[in-house]
Amino acid sequence: MTNPTLATLLAHRSIRRFTDQKLTPEEITTLVTAAQHAPTSTFSQQYSILSVTDPAKLAALGDLTGHHWLEQAGHYFIFLVDQYRNQELAPKTITTATNLHSTDKLLAGIFDATIATEAVVTAGESLGLGSTIMGSILNDVPRLIQLFELPELTFPVLGLAIGHPAEQPEHKPRLPQKLMHFENTYHPVTAADPQVVAYDALLKRYYQQRTTNQREETFTHHLATELSRDPQQRAGILAALQQQGFLQE
Amino acid sequence: MTNPTLATLLAHRSIRRFTDQKLTPEEITTLVTAAQHAPTSTFSQQYSILSVTDPAKLAALGDLTGHHWLEQAGHYFIFLVDQYRNQELAPKTITTATNLHSTDKLLAGIFDATIATEAVVTAGESLGLGSTIMGSILNDVPRLIQLFELPELTFPVLGLAIGHPAEQPEHKPRLPQKLMHFENTYHPVTAADPQVVAYDALLKRYYQQRTTNQREETFTHHLATELSRDPQQRAGILAALQQQGFLQE
Repeated sequence: MTNPTLATLLAHRSIRRFTDQKLTPEEITTLVTAAQHAPTSTFSQQYSILSVTDPAKLAALGDLTGHHWLEQAGHYFIFLVDQYRNQELAPKTITTATNLHSTDKLLAGIFDATIATEAVVTAGESLGLGSTIMGSILNDVPRLIQLFELPELTFPVLGLAIGHPAEQPEHKPRLPQKLMHFENTYHPVTAADPQVVAYDALLKRYYQQRTTNQREETFTHHLATELSRDPQQRAGILAALQQQGFLQE
Repeated sequence: MTNPTLATLLAHRSIRRFTDQKLTPEEITTLVTAAQHAPTSTFSQQYSILSVTDPAKLAALGDLTGHHWLEQAGHYFIFLVDQYRNQELAPKTITTATNLHSTDKLLAGIFDATIATEAVVTAGESLGLGSTIMGSILNDVPRLIQLFELPELTFPVLGLAIGHPAEQPEHKPRLPQKLMHFENTYHPVTAADPQVVAYDALLKRYYQQRTTNQREETFTHHLATELSRDPQQRAGILAALQQQGFLQE
C-alpha cells in the first residue's frame, strides 16, 4: 500500500545540516498555505507562525537552544499558540464570557500550532526540503517572549529549522507497533517484554552502524538519560504559561 | 508549485459522514506506521495510539462527545500522551531523577501525540479516506481514563474518526496569511483591520452558499460564540492532568 504522500511520510528524517540555499518567498508561502489547510480546533485558527529572518534573532535562538546549526537553515519558523488574536477579534458586545484562560483553550491552541508544524514538515519534504522540529526553544520562554514581543495569550511551542538537506541520515527504527498501539484498553508494557529487548538490540545496531555520530546506545538507556535530565532546566515553562494568561482554570 | 503530497494537504476537509466500509487491518497498520515515522521529541516516542473497536466503548464516546456520528466511522483512534511506558522502560538503576511530572514532558507528549494525529490524517487522505480530529473527547477525561484503563502519566488528547467519505464538503476559507504569519516580531491584529472585515465577508458567503448546514455567520461572530462557552464545561481537564501526574512543576 503506497502512494507519493505515504512515501513522503515514511521517508521522514530530521535534517540538521543544510546547503546555503535559502527558501524562496514562494516556497515559504506554499508552506504556510499547507499549514493553513490543516484542521484547527472548532475552526478557531488559534495559532500563528513567526518567520525568523533577522540574523541577530537567529543567533539568539542558536544561543538559547544550544543548536547554532539552526542559523544555517534555509528558513526558520516558530509556531505559536495564539488566543490573543481571537480575543481581539471577537466582538466585545456579543462575547458574554471568556474561556481563553482555560486549560482547554491552551490545549486547543497547542493542538492547532502542532498540527500546523507537522503539515509544514510534510509539505516541505514533498518539495525536497528537510527540517527538524525544535522543542528546545522552550529552554528560555521569557527570552522568546521578549525577543518576538509576544503578547498575553500567545505562547511559542515549536521551532522548525527547514532547508535544502546537506545530509541524508538513515531511518531510525521505531518501537514495534504492539508496544504503542492498543485495542480498546491500554496495555501496560514492561522492560522485560521480549519485544522491548529486541527493540533495544535493533536500536543498538542502528546507533553502531549509522554513518555519523555512532555510539553505544539502546532505547531504554536513551530513556534513562532523557528522564534523568534535571527538570529545573525547563522549570520556567509552567510559570511562563501562567504569566501569559494560560492555565487559570 | 504542486505535487501529490501538497495536493493532498490542500484538499483537506473534515469528514463526518462515512460509508459502511470499515478500514482493513492493512489500512490501520499503514496509518499507524505513518504516525510512527513522524518526528517525536528527543526521540522518546512519548505517545500511544488506542484503536476503539468495541461498540459499547464507541457508544460511550458518542455520548460523551455528543457526536454519535463517530460510531459510523470506518475506524476510531485515540491519541494519548504516554510517559508511563517510558517510566516503565527506563532502567531504574541508571535513572538518577525523573522529570516525567514536569510541564516540559507533558508538552513533549502532547507534541508527539498531536504530530502523530496529523500524520494519520494526511496518510488517510492520501488513501482516499476522510477524517475529523475530535478535541471533544476532552469533555469527560475521567470517563476516558476509566473506559480505557489509562494509567498515570498517560492522557488522551485527540480522537480521530476516519473512514470512507460519504460527503464532499467545500473548502472553508482560512485567515489571510498577513493576519497569522509574521516576520521577526509578533504583529497584533485588530477587529478594524480591513483584512479582518474582508475575511468576515468571505466566510459569510461561504456559510451562506455551502451545500449543507447553511447559516448566517462570520468569523468574528463564530469566535464570539466559541469564546463565550462556559469554561466550567471542561473545567475537569486541569484537575485530570494533575491527577494523572502531570503539571507538578
